[in-house]
Amino acid sequence: MTINYPFKKQTTRVVTRGQNVISKSNMGMKLENILNETNEYYRMHNIAVIYKKPIPIQIVKVDYPNREHAKITEAYYKIPSTTDYNGIYKGFYVDFEAKESNSKTSFPLRNIHPHQIEHLRLIKKQGGIGFIIFYFAQYDEYYVMKLSIVLKYWDDIDGRKSIPYAEFKQNGFLIKESYSPRLDYLKAWDYLLND
Amino acid sequence: MTINYPFKKQTTRVVTRGQNVISKSNMGMKLENILNETNEYYRMHNIAVIYKKPIPIQIVKVDYPNREHAKITEAYYKIPSTTDYNGIYKGFYVDFEAKESNSKTSFPLRNIHPHQIEHLRLIKKQGGIGFIIFYFAQYDEYYVMKLSIVLKYWDDIDGRKSIPYAEFKQNGFLIKESYSPRLDYLKAWDYLLND
Repeated sequence: MTINYPFKKQTTRVVTRGQNVISKSNMGMKLENILNETNEYYRMHNIAVIYKKPIPIQIVKVDYPNREHAKITEAYYKIPSTTDYNGIYKGFYVDFEAKESNSKTSFPLRNIHPHQIEHLRLIKKQGGIGFIIFYFAQYDEYYVMKLSIVLKYWDDIDGRKSIPYAEFKQNGFLIKESYSPRLDYLKAWDYLLND
Repeated sequence: MTINYPFKKQTTRVVTRGQNVISKSNMGMKLENILNETNEYYRMHNIAVIYKKPIPIQIVKVDYPNREHAKITEAYYKIPSTTDYNGIYKGFYVDFEAKESNSKTSFPLRNIHPHQIEHLRLIKKQGGIGFIIFYFAQYDEYYVMKLSIVLKYWDDIDGRKSIPYAEFKQNGFLIKESYSPRLDYLKAWDYLLND
């Protein structure tokens, strides 16, 4: 279900977690849009109810030009304590993060926040389905990856904190972009249940 | 898990959905704080993983005084499409909204958004546990209420769109405020499974 807001959406720039300034209009937005459309399709067809969570913001100042319109004039991005997406499918609690990289050889894990990995661990412990969707922009390939494989690289202290492309090819679940739904990631369900 | 943000939390004023301007420092904040503390307790003790979702904001302008600090200088509140709280307990997907009223005789439903009720309906259809926590500030009483009872009043076209206090006394699940956890709403679990 789409809500129409009274304010026009404009292109804004965002800062990735303590790293580079990027333009939200390109990097990351394709993946977010494709997932939002997919989740809307899932909801419309009573397949699953999964949403992207709002970006966490610390609001400091609000102006009231009139009763109806509150204008936030000072706010800051907060570090997310959980993943971006969660919901329900086939009675299961589903929870995941989605990341994109321009690399061709491996997927760097540095822009996944430690809290997010700890969160996914807890979800798994509680009987939920937690995973990560990785988008290799250079290949235009989307991989659903089991948490256990991600953790193998995440927990490797001596490792380079990235997952080689070959690992995705071998043990990830490739999802092809399509029309309706745009990215049918729930096709990886049996693969995920087997985690 | 609590994250410490680099910016001091200040008291801000918020606008309830198209209605009155209220001070966030009192109305609503007690309920939100008590639930956040409870959810933190649940997570710390590996009981459940439940979070409040961030407030949905439409960001329009961002300033960059330096690389590290992005300052949002223009943003607006958006209408939430889902409820405020969700997570996992005993393998079940859990989803709820929490509301507060100063009324003594009945709980008005006007500040619950139609999208939120539709969302809870879908959750129930998917096999999840959906409910609402009502706080009667005048009595300092918290009631967990099954969705089916809320819907009885919500769907009553000729009704006054409020739930009488007597209904809570009779068919709600009263939760007393305590110390640790502050509001043990998962005590209502069997009541909710019976919905």
